[in-house]
Formats: sequence, structure tokens, C-alpha cells
Amino acid sequence: MNRQDIVRDPEASSSKTDLRLWLRLLKVQRRIEGRLRERLRDEFNSTLPRFDVLAALSSAEEGLRMSELSGILKVSNGNVTGIVDRLVADGYVIRSPVDNDRRATRVCLTGAGKQYFDVLAIAHEGWLSDLLARFDIGEKKILSPMLDRLNTDLVTMTEQDN
Amino acid sequence: MNRQDIVRDPEASSSKTDLRLWLRLLKVQRRIEGRLRERLRDEFNSTLPRFDVLAALSSAEEGLRMSELSGILKVSNGNVTGIVDRLVADGYVIRSPVDNDRRATRVCLTGAGKQYFDVLAIAHEGWLSDLLARFDIGEKKILSPMLDRLNTDLVTMTEQDN
Repeated sequence: MNRQDIVRDPEASSSKTDLRLWLRLLKVQRRIEGRLRERLRDEFNSTLPRFDVLAALSSAEEGLRMSELSGILKVSNGNVTGIVDRLVADGYVIRSPVDNDRRATRVCLTGAGKQYFDVLAIAHEGWLSDLLARFDIGEKKILSPMLDRLNTDLVTMTEQDN
Repeated sequence: MNRQDIVRDPEASSSKTDLRLWLRLLKVQRRIEGRLRERLRDEFNSTLPRFDVLAALSSAEEGLRMSELSGILKVSNGNVTGIVDRLVADGYVIRSPVDNDRRATRVCLTGAGKQYFDVLAIAHEGWLSDLLARFDIGEKKILSPMLDRLNTDLVTMTEQDN
């Protein structure tokens, strides 16, 4: 777009700003996610969807139903059944029946699973610190509340639509 | 984490800040992407990977090789061959042989494909404007250069590693 377009059509130029902002956000997110993916693979022979399953289970005291895990994994495109099968075989999670619902299964971390996730989570936190190291604390303090507000706006919008 | 932990271990508290910043960024990105995905499906019976293929082709005058398209789509988890097959059937792209390389195929937008993508791109830009509407221009002006610098840092890091 050249200067003339901006002068002629201020509406268009503001939506171009939004588009560029989104593309920047997407680039940052994809780069960081790509790096985390590489590190999980290289250092733990693991994957992001597997990490996401473990993270979800680690903050669910009572475990999670397979359907809840599927919901969480929808975004990371993982195959929940395959991931859980593998984690069961590794001794990191167990499947148990759900009371009053014969068709449902609950998945919980074992003690070994909790220890394993603790190691992964510490490494993951360290990688992020490295990736964001040159981003100074002042910038982080500005960015965090902005992202929070954007998040709140997006949730409100989604609720209005549904 | 309570205050005492922060006082005792400033390192840990700073890496927690990074982790939280990343989770915020991820939430915003996933929410926006989820909305774009819904709109593409509901209003155009289309998908994000298909949109990404069209977007990549629309900025490549000479078209792209299938291998280049695969690289672009790696992040959005799309099946390039399936998407291109469908776009060929719809008359939006054509495949042609690459000079001096009998095994390679180049993919280009047709005139109809260009028109179709223009319509999608205008809608996509409008959805983003709606999604970012309550984020004021001052905030966007702060956020954009921050994301740019973070992006540059991440690229430099990746290059150092490789």
C-alpha cells in the first residue's frame, strides 16, 4: 500500500494495521512454539500435544475424562487416544472407570507421571526464559496487561455470539 | 506462588513471569485463530490451511513448488496435496511442470482463484478488525514494535543455533 491509499481511505489503513498486528503476533507465537517443539523432541523425545496432555492432567487433582482431554487437545491437533495409550504404556498415567457412567473413562497421572511432568515443566519454563531473555522486564509489564485485556474482550465477544 | 517464594528466589519468579506471558500470548493467538477458523467455515465453507495456501500463492507471482507450499503449511497442519487437489477441482489453481526438473510441480492461482482469494482476504481483514476493535490505536502502536523486536530476537537465536 502506498501513501496515497492511506490518505484516501483511512478505514482501510486501520484494518491493514490490525492485519499486520495479527501477522506479527502469529509469527512470534509460531516461532516460540516451533522452538518449544524442537526442544521437546531433541531433549525429551516428546511432543507438544503430549506435553499439553500432561500439563492438563497435572492441574486436575481428580484426573480428567477422555472427552475433557479431547477438548483441551483440539487446539494442538493431537490424537488423544494415541497419546494416552503411550503414556499408559510408559507408566505415567492410568485409566479408571467413571462412577455411574460405564462408557466413560477417567485418566490420572501416576506418581512417576507427576515426577516426569515436573522435569518437563522445569525445562519448558527454562526454554521460555531463554527465548524471552532479551525482552526486558519493563516491556513484559506493558505487554501482560494488554494481552489480558485483549483476552477478556475476545471471551466477551464469543459469549455474545453464542 | 506466594510472596515468600518471590523473595527467596528471584530467578524462579522471573521465569514464572515469562511462562505466564507466553500462556497469555498463546491464549490470545488461539482465540483469534479459533474465531477466524469458525468464520471461514461458516461464511465460506473453507478452512485455515486452505486460506494459508491461497494467501501464499497470491503473493507469489511465479507460483510455488509443492515443496515450498508444504513448508508453509507445516505450521497449520494441513494436507497440501489434498488442499491443492480440491483447489484445482474448483478451478482456483493450476499445476504446471517445472523447467529442468521433471519430478517437480509448480502451483499457480488462476484468474478465478485470484478473485476468490480477494473476497476471502477482505472478509478476513474485516474479521480481524472486529476482533481487535476494542484495542485502541495507542495500544497497537506500542504492541507492534515490541512484537517486531521479539521476532527479530527469535530469528537471531534460531540462526545462531543452526
